[in-house]
Amino acid sequence: MIIELVNTGSELMLGRVLNTHQQWICRQLADMGWVVERQVAVADTARDIRDAVREALERADLVIVTGGLGPTSDDLTRELIAEMLGRKLVMNEGIREEIRQFFASRNRPQPARTEVQALVPEGAIVLPNSQGTAPGLAMEVSAKIYRSARSWLIMLPGPPRELRPMWTEHVVPLLKREFSPAENFVCRTLKTTGIGESRVEEIIARHLDEQLKAGLEIGYCARIGEVDVRFVCRGPNASACVAAAEKITGRLLRDHVYGVDDEQLETVIVRMLTERKQRLALAESCTGGFIANRITNVPGASAVLLAGLVTYSNEAKEQFLDVSAKTLKAHGAVSEAVAREMADGARRRTGADYAISVTGIAGPSGGTPEKPVGTVFIGLATPTDTSIAHKVNAFDRETFKYVSSQQALEILRRAILENKKPAG
Amino acid sequence: MIIELVNTGSELMLGRVLNTHQQWICRQLADMGWVVERQVAVADTARDIRDAVREALERADLVIVTGGLGPTSDDLTRELIAEMLGRKLVMNEGIREEIRQFFASRNRPQPARTEVQALVPEGAIVLPNSQGTAPGLAMEVSAKIYRSARSWLIMLPGPPRELRPMWTEHVVPLLKREFSPAENFVCRTLKTTGIGESRVEEIIARHLDEQLKAGLEIGYCARIGEVDVRFVCRGPNASACVAAAEKITGRLLRDHVYGVDDEQLETVIVRMLTERKQRLALAESCTGGFIANRITNVPGASAVLLAGLVTYSNEAKEQFLDVSAKTLKAHGAVSEAVAREMADGARRRTGADYAISVTGIAGPSGGTPEKPVGTVFIGLATPTDTSIAHKVNAFDRETFKYVSSQQALEILRRAILENKKPAG
Repeated sequence: MIIELVNTGSELMLGRVLNTHQQWICRQLADMGWVVERQVAVADTARDIRDAVREALERADLVIVTGGLGPTSDDLTRELIAEMLGRKLVMNEGIREEIRQFFASRNRPQPARTEVQALVPEGAIVLPNSQGTAPGLAMEVSAKIYRSARSWLIMLPGPPRELRPMWTEHVVPLLKREFSPAENFVCRTLKTTGIGESRVEEIIARHLDEQLKAGLEIGYCARIGEVDVRFVCRGPNASACVAAAEKITGRLLRDHVYGVDDEQLETVIVRMLTERKQRLALAESCTGGFIANRITNVPGASAVLLAGLVTYSNEAKEQFLDVSAKTLKAHGAVSEAVAREMADGARRRTGADYAISVTGIAGPSGGTPEKPVGTVFIGLATPTDTSIAHKVNAFDRETFKYVSSQQALEILRRAILENKKPAG
Repeated sequence: MIIELVNTGSELMLGRVLNTHQQWICRQLADMGWVVERQVAVADTARDIRDAVREALERADLVIVTGGLGPTSDDLTRELIAEMLGRKLVMNEGIREEIRQFFASRNRPQPARTEVQALVPEGAIVLPNSQGTAPGLAMEVSAKIYRSARSWLIMLPGPPRELRPMWTEHVVPLLKREFSPAENFVCRTLKTTGIGESRVEEIIARHLDEQLKAGLEIGYCARIGEVDVRFVCRGPNASACVAAAEKITGRLLRDHVYGVDDEQLETVIVRMLTERKQRLALAESCTGGFIANRITNVPGASAVLLAGLVTYSNEAKEQFLDVSAKTLKAHGAVSEAVAREMADGARRRTGADYAISVTGIAGPSGGTPEKPVGTVFIGLATPTDTSIAHKVNAFDRETFKYVSSQQALEILRRAILENKKPAG
């Protein structure tokens, strides 16, 4: 089964918006055992959309098109595709009424142009939109037009919060009805830290010969401070093959492996602390709440996180973390001494088992010769002691926050691993 | 000038990684006046990469390929393209030495395979990599192979922190040298809140006839709680045309327009507070530091943000914000009364002019019939009074945090606009 994805939108080609549909739709399909062969993005111009959709239909059994179904004058997909396939657009009274009700129930005037969203190409299936006014459309494209086999063409609205429920509620059942299930497909990602990608391959690849012969594919993806190792296998023995590869890799890389699949450091930390019934406090200056945000993205974080103090000003460091004015004056807010008092203060004030502190210079301004932009001190107070790491993360502001948070969370993970039996 | 972008990487097609290159590279080129015509993503398989690059070279004057230049066995781009273009790969001793030094200077063993990164197709220009070991490559592809005109093919490494400096340091100078400057190109986005996209079009489009005749293109992009209005124009009068459109739209939409281009609500708020010399404190429960993170992403936020208290537990709400145990017991942590005490406490404790509080149920668990998942109370304490908004944002956990933060920041923005002369 060949699948292609076409994302339409001038905002994509002008670099104004991040295309999140690609990852999301590709992931949904991979979880059903189908891998998208090609993804294409084009602007909202008639020729570009027409070429991209026509070429995709020539190659694929399933073509998914996103965007261009809305009510404004730059929403062209519906009309262009109907015209290209020689299908009339017919006003669907049911949808028209739903659009009316959408506005009526919100006490908002209904702009006249919103009714174009009720136009449906002849023979198309309507995919209701529970979150907005533009329905999706699905149609089987006649074999005679393009290919020997039939193709399905599915058009989905651009806004993610409309597309995603529509996918789950209407596209998945349609795919299950129209296509035979994919061959057994297993994809597993091991997440590692503290080791480079070529070193990872050098350590593991020669021990996986048996699995490679059985059809295992290995992928490596270097990220900031991390390397993903991805195993993919198909067929009846896929699960066993991937499980064996995972076991061998785990043995070779030991605690460089911190998690699997979508797990991030914060997921692992919340799980470890929950299992150990231990609790966490955060004292952030330069990361400005980014670590707290990561931890609280994990469902169940409330069992683990007591408080996060984003103490951006010196006064806040004194008031909420008991950092002494003397230390601030003698060493400056960005210093090992202040990082230590922040971590200790957060742990003492909240009664947490662990407290992380981060103080540094995110930039772009504020650096000095002794403490350049990117300087950061990361403190960790544990049941047994308090330690400080000093790093220089010379990146742009947001990358600085990300890298510093990765370092802090990795330091915490290693400490939790070591402190199996906390004192006290 | 026709430009195409090819992103390679099985992790993209498996939906494991978000493709940030598309937005970033498209934006860099748009800022130089060039719009990418088509972006394609394919897996790390020989046939897919070869087809995608060949087709792009058949159509485009400039083809940019990302990914597949690293040292591991799934990095195929360099070899495939050399083979496809009939160019030998030659070991470049300078790069080989740099790779050796990269590992030596970090006291890390050098895996043997890393040397493949020093192989360069005959005639290619090497683009040095200041952040990693894989250099980029650029070559002019002979007109005789594919098209009547010459094409440039530029290959860049996959990791964004390697690609981005390489772009700025080496690709931009190459493009400026090899291609004539683009026609004058102006792109301006007005960011609006509190009004739907079809309503925006209904209000503004008929007043922009003159600009449309002069070549203005208008785009609309609906986001959660926001609509972007985008004006694009080319040619000698582009700036005047877009400026006129912006002026007319600003007059018609008034304070629905909160910013332009890449400005987000947090950027605007930091700017407004900085201008007014006013300061902010945050008291977050369910948004878990996300608002603090947004505010501190803005350079200069330290002049504005005093502290952000992420009070996830009841004890933290009492200790850091003086929320009374009685109120917590009588109304529950997710209540109008607690939101009020949190906002008042944060403002009083820090001496800020404004304090925002957010308390709610992010889910997926924790909801009740009276307070379902998605319930949120947003408090705002200002120099004149404290007010509470009650919303139900029934989304997944991360979208809930985003939507709630948008609502809180918009409430704050309107308050700052109204409180031109703060009391006290």
